[in-house]
Amino acid sequence: MSSTGDIVQRVNFANPRSFTTTFKSDLKETFFPDDPFKQFKNDPPLRRAKKALQYFVPIFEWLPRYNFRLFRYDLLAGITIASLAIPQGISYAKLANIPPIIGLYSSFVPPFIYAVFGSSNYLAVGTVAASSLLIASTIGEVVSAEDNPTLYLHLVFTATLFTGIFQTALGFLRLGILVDFLSHSTITGFMGGTATIICLQQLKGMFGMVHFTTKTDVVSVLRAVFTYRKEWRWESVVVGICFLSFLQFTRFLRKRNPRLFWLSAIAPMVTVVVGCVFAYFAHAEKHGIQIVGHLKKGLNPSSIDDLVFDPKYIAAPIKAGIISGILALAEGIAIGRSFAIMKNEQTDGNKEMIAFGLMNIVGSFTSCYLTTGPFSKTAVNFNAGCKTAMSNVVMAICMMLTLLFLAPLFGYTPLVALSAIIMSAMLGLIDYEEAYRLFKVDKFDFCICMSAFLGVSFISMDIGLMLSVGISIIRALLYVARPATSKLANIPNSAIYRDVEQYPGATGVPGILILQLGSPIYFANCTYIRERIMRWIKDEQGFSDSKADVIEHVLLELGGVTSIDMTGIETLSEIRRSLEVIGIKLALVNPRIEVMEKLIVSKFIDKIGKESVFLSIEDAINASRFLLSESKQKNGFPEESNVV
Amino acid sequence: MSSTGDIVQRVNFANPRSFTTTFKSDLKETFFPDDPFKQFKNDPPLRRAKKALQYFVPIFEWLPRYNFRLFRYDLLAGITIASLAIPQGISYAKLANIPPIIGLYSSFVPPFIYAVFGSSNYLAVGTVAASSLLIASTIGEVVSAEDNPTLYLHLVFTATLFTGIFQTALGFLRLGILVDFLSHSTITGFMGGTATIICLQQLKGMFGMVHFTTKTDVVSVLRAVFTYRKEWRWESVVVGICFLSFLQFTRFLRKRNPRLFWLSAIAPMVTVVVGCVFAYFAHAEKHGIQIVGHLKKGLNPSSIDDLVFDPKYIAAPIKAGIISGILALAEGIAIGRSFAIMKNEQTDGNKEMIAFGLMNIVGSFTSCYLTTGPFSKTAVNFNAGCKTAMSNVVMAICMMLTLLFLAPLFGYTPLVALSAIIMSAMLGLIDYEEAYRLFKVDKFDFCICMSAFLGVSFISMDIGLMLSVGISIIRALLYVARPATSKLANIPNSAIYRDVEQYPGATGVPGILILQLGSPIYFANCTYIRERIMRWIKDEQGFSDSKADVIEHVLLELGGVTSIDMTGIETLSEIRRSLEVIGIKLALVNPRIEVMEKLIVSKFIDKIGKESVFLSIEDAINASRFLLSESKQKNGFPEESNVV
Repeated sequence: MSSTGDIVQRVNFANPRSFTTTFKSDLKETFFPDDPFKQFKNDPPLRRAKKALQYFVPIFEWLPRYNFRLFRYDLLAGITIASLAIPQGISYAKLANIPPIIGLYSSFVPPFIYAVFGSSNYLAVGTVAASSLLIASTIGEVVSAEDNPTLYLHLVFTATLFTGIFQTALGFLRLGILVDFLSHSTITGFMGGTATIICLQQLKGMFGMVHFTTKTDVVSVLRAVFTYRKEWRWESVVVGICFLSFLQFTRFLRKRNPRLFWLSAIAPMVTVVVGCVFAYFAHAEKHGIQIVGHLKKGLNPSSIDDLVFDPKYIAAPIKAGIISGILALAEGIAIGRSFAIMKNEQTDGNKEMIAFGLMNIVGSFTSCYLTTGPFSKTAVNFNAGCKTAMSNVVMAICMMLTLLFLAPLFGYTPLVALSAIIMSAMLGLIDYEEAYRLFKVDKFDFCICMSAFLGVSFISMDIGLMLSVGISIIRALLYVARPATSKLANIPNSAIYRDVEQYPGATGVPGILILQLGSPIYFANCTYIRERIMRWIKDEQGFSDSKADVIEHVLLELGGVTSIDMTGIETLSEIRRSLEVIGIKLALVNPRIEVMEKLIVSKFIDKIGKESVFLSIEDAINASRFLLSESKQKNGFPEESNVV
Repeated sequence: MSSTGDIVQRVNFANPRSFTTTFKSDLKETFFPDDPFKQFKNDPPLRRAKKALQYFVPIFEWLPRYNFRLFRYDLLAGITIASLAIPQGISYAKLANIPPIIGLYSSFVPPFIYAVFGSSNYLAVGTVAASSLLIASTIGEVVSAEDNPTLYLHLVFTATLFTGIFQTALGFLRLGILVDFLSHSTITGFMGGTATIICLQQLKGMFGMVHFTTKTDVVSVLRAVFTYRKEWRWESVVVGICFLSFLQFTRFLRKRNPRLFWLSAIAPMVTVVVGCVFAYFAHAEKHGIQIVGHLKKGLNPSSIDDLVFDPKYIAAPIKAGIISGILALAEGIAIGRSFAIMKNEQTDGNKEMIAFGLMNIVGSFTSCYLTTGPFSKTAVNFNAGCKTAMSNVVMAICMMLTLLFLAPLFGYTPLVALSAIIMSAMLGLIDYEEAYRLFKVDKFDFCICMSAFLGVSFISMDIGLMLSVGISIIRALLYVARPATSKLANIPNSAIYRDVEQYPGATGVPGILILQLGSPIYFANCTYIRERIMRWIKDEQGFSDSKADVIEHVLLELGGVTSIDMTGIETLSEIRRSLEVIGIKLALVNPRIEVMEKLIVSKFIDKIGKESVFLSIEDAINASRFLLSESKQKNGFPEESNVV
């Protein structure tokens, strides 16, 4: 036994770490994966307080180092995104069925808040189409925007407040993990579906129609378009197509030459200005082209007293607040992160949530509705060369000047121009190439994507989203319920053992079956794992009928098993017992620290014996060979076991 | 580059398997993990049909081989479980607030059905306490058993029908996987909680009370016991304590000497007979000891016309049917399996479901309520030496004789005797030792167990169960959302690389950081994995300030990564890009077949280059060392990278 003795010693059977240690470490990995407090650890208290302040309020970190050279970049970027903010603000406010001026208000206060608390240098604050439509459809279920516009608007402010509270709470509770459950595929499908229904809704504006449906699904919208066919105006269609062609042409130019990004960035502003001038001089209204209408001069009025907490209506703004809050976070955080990665900077998801949350809470008090970091604006901001969140401040000041002096002029904007702007933006979001790529790489991801796309298009936005997330979660649970197991064999001329399916040239070891388990062993997959292992053994016995090749040892390679629970430990005991009955010895190879600890505490190691646990497959095989040859010397050939 | 070239060739970059292949294999592992059709593959059609029949209707498999020798064992076991079935049937029917005779009916028809379709040799069919109480509490919410006993009973039959349909459907759809989500800890806690509230409910019978609550939670039950204090009868208490002591004493004897199991097996029957005789001769009713009352002679009447499909009531039986159906499956399948393991036989979960389902469907037509494989009866059956499902037939025949000739006699059974029988059975189910073991081995499992226990005790059975399953699922999702990652180092004098936390003696390789990822890489954990990897690198750079030890290579050991989705692939690309910016090269080690396929299809392998994928850590280090020495020769020392 000396040779096996040597090997056994290498396995670490040290006493398990205490519960507090592992619990603290688990808690930390779950809620503080970015380890935010590490940097303060070794500092004196005052310095630590300063660092903490800088950590929680990022402006204190970058403002002291701010200088005029950086400001020049931010000024240019800020003006560029302001020129985008005006048309987008008016358009998306129309999408949410609220007065267009609210869209302009929403690009004034929130950017200031984000500049103070936000951790991304590139994110540009603004309203987004998907959340605007989602709010409209959810609030629209209880109050009609046409019959009771004041109550409707107040409910939108209330929804914004709930979004803010929800986002801040998620950030403080470090529940950024929730956003992780919106997968890439879900977002691709959801965005595509939303863009589709928003585009279709713009047919109202393009055709110059007056009546329309409040529903968002494709069928209702198309039905509405054809029901009110008599309202179609050819003047509106002609103007709309002109604007849309212009906008799409600038996007095309940008695609051909990325340095022309500013062209597509100012195109919406150009559309609005041209539209205003055209409407003013051509008296467009008389020719069936509707305009935005009167826009009041002046800054955001307070809306604290407008918030509605009437139990009769409260459910809708809470629902709208939470769903659009998650959506806005997903978009904002994902976008902030992608740009940060390009520059190798870090953004902190939880800190971003708090910034978004505060921005929306303050917004709901100052006549703003839901804002986040929209993709289009952020991309323009990044390309325009912004260096810090100061570009948001510049944009906010531009918006302030607009509100104070220019607002009434934008009242002449033709609705068809807004529809063209929205359509053009949305066409870029239908990412059919990505969907095709998903189809090619991973059919299941494609299903998740399509369930979001079809759910949003044909049922409703929230149901589409939940459907897709639900399928993703079922998939996640299936991963753990049906973990991969594989049979390993020796790669010739090495001590390496790999999956025989992947490396068909690998050679097995007679009398020894080596199985690799992946993923945690626990309640959801215990039954499966036991049956799978018994099946491997049956299959193996079936292949080789010769007596010499009867399996005497089963080695379980546990390197990929990250965790085990009580049900899992019971299962291992049951497997050991079942194998014992048919004369097969079970050995474990390389259990990880978390697994080893539980096996020791639950006395499984005592049951199986320390001499049956090995550090590597090589060790285990050497030990088994030693035993094999011993048993052969004793009994001639081993008896055939009674597995059928 | 020749040395790295040699190594690269060993990795299998073969073309991915087709979608149909992988999809078929995934589908098979998910729904047919036991591969039921394999055995027929190579047979001629007629033989195949015969085998299929034998597979789907197990009686055809064992009956032709049945002989008198086996029957002797089954006869004895059958009579023993019949003696248990009578008191249990009456008791649990009382628990479900239905006429006691229904309990006897339920041990007559269903065992026949199980004998035909069941795949376990040891399972004894009967009613169970937990499901009885669950049905009572769910149906009791819509119809009172006291005010409208006929409708109540008909709804119980309807619930049984839905249970049967649900179970059969699960079996045909191969959804045995659902039962896997009831973990060992959930069942321990649920059983303990149910046993506690059932015991407390028996205080009604023990105290001889007439009025009581229909609620099941501890607080309501205790309040009811003390509210109707004036109804307490000392005669009942004395008789109850005598019976309970007798029953507990026989259980104690069995524990001391397992061969005396038959003593505890017939003890309930003895209690009932003694109780009947006592009640008959002592005119117990006049002394405040209530008896069961009239039991009609005769076999099960048909109840097809009694089934209620009135939309007004239908929700309750559906809910009761589904929840108690899952519970009954969990108990029946788990128990059948544990006894099969002792004898190294296989039971098939999906086949068992169909057998249970058919048994309940037929039961609902013949005045039976929910039956499954109760633990106590099955254990007695096993210990009494049963060999096949024939023991169920023997039991059913005994029940038939009882129903035909003896039923009225059992009408004299004192209710207090039934309470004592139930209490005694339930006390054995409160497994505080297991709870303590859970506490020691796995605190999270303990929480899951306690949430079921406390939920059932203080809220209600279904909420307790769902709470516990919900927590289990969140845990399962956390496993995938926060997978274990660890830093590997070389175990001295070997080519083995292991977790440095587990093996503190392992030595690192200068300039190379080796990280092992566990569990699938996908949407739920992508953000975490990226941040964790960046943190490993930061930590590493923080520890060693010397320029020579700057990290130049990061090796990701992917042997434990069983799957990857689109979000995961994007993340790997992002990690590669981030590392590139700070001058670190990324290499992958040992991706499994599923992962490799997706990396190839998504062109990630082309991006990273085949020369950056290795079969083993050793190979990767050799290749990196080669590159490291090359870069040192070129640049003297490598530049410090700009990670902070």
